[in-house]
Amino acid sequence: MRHLLSAGDLSRDEATLVLDTARELAQVSSRSVKKLPTLRGRTVVNLFYEDSTRTRISFEAAAKRMSADVINFSAKGSSVSKGESLKDTALTLQAMGADGVVIRHSASGAARRLAGWVDGAVLNAGDGTHEHPTQALLDAYTMRERMGRLEGLRVAIVGDIRHSRVARSNVLLLHTLGAEVTLVAPPTLLPVSVGTWPCAVSYDLDEVLPKSDVVMMLRVQAERMRAAFFPTAREYSRRYGLDRDRFARLHDDAIVMHPGPMIRGMEISAEVADSPRSTITEQVANGVSVRMAVLYLLLGGSESAIGNGN
Amino acid sequence: MRHLLSAGDLSRDEATLVLDTARELAQVSSRSVKKLPTLRGRTVVNLFYEDSTRTRISFEAAAKRMSADVINFSAKGSSVSKGESLKDTALTLQAMGADGVVIRHSASGAARRLAGWVDGAVLNAGDGTHEHPTQALLDAYTMRERMGRLEGLRVAIVGDIRHSRVARSNVLLLHTLGAEVTLVAPPTLLPVSVGTWPCAVSYDLDEVLPKSDVVMMLRVQAERMRAAFFPTAREYSRRYGLDRDRFARLHDDAIVMHPGPMIRGMEISAEVADSPRSTITEQVANGVSVRMAVLYLLLGGSESAIGNGN
Amino acid sequence: MRHLLSAGDLSRDEATLVLDTARELAQVSSRSVKKLPTLRGRTVVNLFYEDSTRTRISFEAAAKRMSADVINFSAKGSSVSKGESLKDTALTLQAMGADGVVIRHSASGAARRLAGWVDGAVLNAGDGTHEHPTQALLDAYTMRERMGRLEGLRVAIVGDIRHSRVARSNVLLLHTLGAEVTLVAPPTLLPVSVGTWPCAVSYDLDEVLPKSDVVMMLRVQAERMRAAFFPTAREYSRRYGLDRDRFARLHDDAIVMHPGPMIRGMEISAEVADSPRSTITEQVANGVSVRMAVLYLLLGGSESAIGNGN
Repeated sequence: MRHLLSAGDLSRDEATLVLDTARELAQVSSRSVKKLPTLRGRTVVNLFYEDSTRTRISFEAAAKRMSADVINFSAKGSSVSKGESLKDTALTLQAMGADGVVIRHSASGAARRLAGWVDGAVLNAGDGTHEHPTQALLDAYTMRERMGRLEGLRVAIVGDIRHSRVARSNVLLLHTLGAEVTLVAPPTLLPVSVGTWPCAVSYDLDEVLPKSDVVMMLRVQAERMRAAFFPTAREYSRRYGLDRDRFARLHDDAIVMHPGPMIRGMEISAEVADSPRSTITEQVANGVSVRMAVLYLLLGGSESAIGNGN
Repeated sequence: MRHLLSAGDLSRDEATLVLDTARELAQVSSRSVKKLPTLRGRTVVNLFYEDSTRTRISFEAAAKRMSADVINFSAKGSSVSKGESLKDTALTLQAMGADGVVIRHSASGAARRLAGWVDGAVLNAGDGTHEHPTQALLDAYTMRERMGRLEGLRVAIVGDIRHSRVARSNVLLLHTLGAEVTLVAPPTLLPVSVGTWPCAVSYDLDEVLPKSDVVMMLRVQAERMRAAFFPTAREYSRRYGLDRDRFARLHDDAIVMHPGPMIRGMEISAEVADSPRSTITEQVANGVSVRMAVLYLLLGGSESAIGNGN
Repeated sequence: MRHLLSAGDLSRDEATLVLDTARELAQVSSRSVKKLPTLRGRTVVNLFYEDSTRTRISFEAAAKRMSADVINFSAKGSSVSKGESLKDTALTLQAMGADGVVIRHSASGAARRLAGWVDGAVLNAGDGTHEHPTQALLDAYTMRERMGRLEGLRVAIVGDIRHSRVARSNVLLLHTLGAEVTLVAPPTLLPVSVGTWPCAVSYDLDEVLPKSDVVMMLRVQAERMRAAFFPTAREYSRRYGLDRDRFARLHDDAIVMHPGPMIRGMEISAEVADSPRSTITEQVANGVSVRMAVLYLLLGGSESAIGNGN
C-alpha cells in the first residue's frame, strides 16, 4: 500500500488502523508535546488545482506537527497555465523529492492517475465528484469517538449526493466499517449509479430522521439546487434543511455532522449548528489527527499497509 | 490578557513590557543566534482578508525566528468566497489547533469579534480604519531607540488621519506612554470624532514642524485626496508633503518616520526618505522584534499580561 | 562574491565549485539524511514578480532541506500594486533580516539592481529575457553527470533563443566550461546581438543534429512563433520540433534536454520526451541539488567565492 486514493480501497483492518493511529496521535500531540519528530526530513507537497483552504490547511498542520516540510503548490498561475500536463507536473514534483503529494483536482480520477507516475505517496484530497477519503476517515473517527462504535450505526447522509465526493467516500467507508447508511435527497440530486451503492435511499428526510443515530448534512450550492428543479435554494432548504423542528425529531443521543464550510440557515440552522450535539468543529480537529495518521502510515516508514492504491 | 486587539487596551506597564521584551529579543536574535526555540510546537495562522505582504511577512519572520509553525491563510479564493462566515472560519482554525491567529480584515472590529470565538491568542494586524496596534508598538519602539525616551516627546502625525488605523493606534499608544501628539491634516481628512482623541490638531504643517521631535508621514492614496477636495494628489503633496524645504525646518535631532509602503515624491521626497534621520527601514526591522515580543508574551506561556483583549 | 546574478560572472573554478558541491550535497541528502542543519536560522525570501511555480518550489525545497526558513513573497496583490518600488521592497526585506533573496522579475537587470541595495545574497531566478543562472548550472550539472565531461561537448540549443534567458545563461556558462554551443533557430528568433555571443549559429536543425552530443530544446510560445512569421506554431514545430525522425538522426549517446515546462507534441514529441535519453526529470532533480549548492556557498558562511555579483 502506497497511496490513499479511495475510501473504497481500504479494508476493514486498514481503515481501523488509520482510526486507531489517529487516536494515538491525538493523545500524544497534546498541549505538552505538540511537535513530533516523526516525519522530519520528509517533504509533503500540497498540489491544489482547486481552492480549498480548509483541506489544505488541515494537511499542512498535520504534516508540520510531525515535522515534515510542506510546500504549497497552487496550480493557479503556475506552469499549468502554460500548458504543462498533470503528468509532467507529477514528474517534476517527484524529481524534486516529494515524499508525499496531497492532490485536490476538479477531475474525477486525477489522484489515481497521479499515483501511476510517482514513487512517493499520493493522498487524494478530493477529485471532482469522485472521492475525498480523508473526509470519510475523519467522519468515521468522529462517529466512533462520539457513539463508541461504528458497527450497526444508522447514518443518514442528506443533500446533494450527486455532486458530493464526501457522500461517496462516506458510503464506501462506512459500509466497510459495518455502519448502515441511508442517502436522503430528491431524485434529481442522486447519482444515476446509486442503485449499485451499498446503502439505502430515501426521498423523505422526516421519515428517516427518527431512525438515525447520525445525520450528516451536505453543502447546498444554490446553482445546483436550481438545476435540480427547485425554484429557489430556499425552497430546497424547506424540504431538506435541518432546522429546529426537524432536529427535535432526532432521538436524544443522535449527532449532527457537516463537512463544512456550511451556510447557516441554508442546509442547517444556526441553532442546530451550535448545538452540543453538532460535531462540526470536532470534525475539523479530528481531521488533523486523521491526516497525521495517514501521513504517518504512508510516509513514516511503517510497513503497515492502509490501502492498496493501484 | 490573551489578545492584542487595540493599542488602547494596553496599560503603560504592559506597553513598556512589550518594548523591553522586543529589545531583549532584538539583542538575542543576532547573527549568532538567529533562531530561538521559544515557540517550538506552536502554530501561528496568518488570516489575511486583505493583501498586506509586508505585515504578513513580518509576522511570519517573527514567528519562524522563534521556531513556531506558520500557516498562511489568504481569504481570497477560500471558503470565504463560498459564503463561510468569519465565525466559522474562526472555529475551524481553533479546531485545527491554532495557538495564535494574526488577522488582517477590512472591517473595523473584526479582530475583536474573532477574539470572542477562539481560545488562542488573536493579534490584530489591521482592521478596517480602526487599529493596527503592532504598528504603533514598533513606531514607539523606534522613537524610544532613536530619541532615548517617549515621555514628553513631541510627535506630529501628518496626512490622511481619517482613514488611518496607523494614526489611531499611534495616538492611543503614544498618549499612554506620555508623548504629545499633534495630528496635521486638512479638515476633510480628519475623523469626525477627532475632538475626543487625546491629542492636538493642526491644519498647518509648516507651523508644526519646528516644534516636533518626530514627524510621522502617512500614506497618500490618490483617490482619497480627490475625495478630500484636492484637485490632484500632487496639489495635496504640495501642501502636506515632506520635501527638502520642509525637512530643513525641522530641528537637528528630529526624525522622520513612515509606516510604508511609501510613494517617494508624493508624501515624502526621495531625498528625505533616504536621509540618515529617516527611520523607515529601522521601523521594518523593529517590526520583526516587536512582533516577536508580542507573540512571545501571548503564546510563550508567560504569565505577563500585555493587554486585556476582552 | 556575494550574489549569483549572471552565469557570465562565474569563473571556471567558481562554476566547477558549484557543480562539485551540488554533487556532494546530492549524495549526502539521500533517503537516510534528507535534512541537513547547514542553514538553520537563515531566512530565504522567494521574491517572485512573475509566476514560476517550478523554480520557486525548487528553491524552496533546496532551502528547506538545509533547514533554512523560507518566506514566499508573490508580488501580485502586494505593496507593489500600491506603488512601492523594487528598491523599497528590497530595503524592507533587508530590514526584516533576509539572508538571501531569490528574485524572479520581468525586467532584465532587476536582480543586479536588487543586489546594489541589500546586504544579503541575491540569487537571480530569471530576470526578463536576460539570465537564469541556476538553470544553466543545473543543465551543466546534468550534462556532466550524463556525459562525464563538459570540455569539448557539442551542445545544440534549439528554439526561441531571442526571448530565452535560459539560452543566454547556458551559452555563457558552457563557454566558460569549455563546451561548444551551436544555437539553432530561424533568424527572426535570434537576438540581434548574437554575433557577439561565444557560440556558433545555424538555421538548419537537421544539419546540426548528427554533430551534437546534447540537444537542448527550448519552450515554444505560440504568440511569439506567429510574430516570427510562422503561419502557425504547428508550422514552427514542423521545422524546429524534435520528433521521432529527427531524434533518430542523433548519435546513440546523445541526450535530449528541456528546461520545462514543455508542451509535448509541440517543441518535442511525447515519445522523445519519455525516452531514456531524455534528461528532463533529471534536470528537475539536479535543480534542487544545484540550488542547495548555491545557497550553501552564498549563505553558509563559507569563504569560497562562486561569482562576483557587483
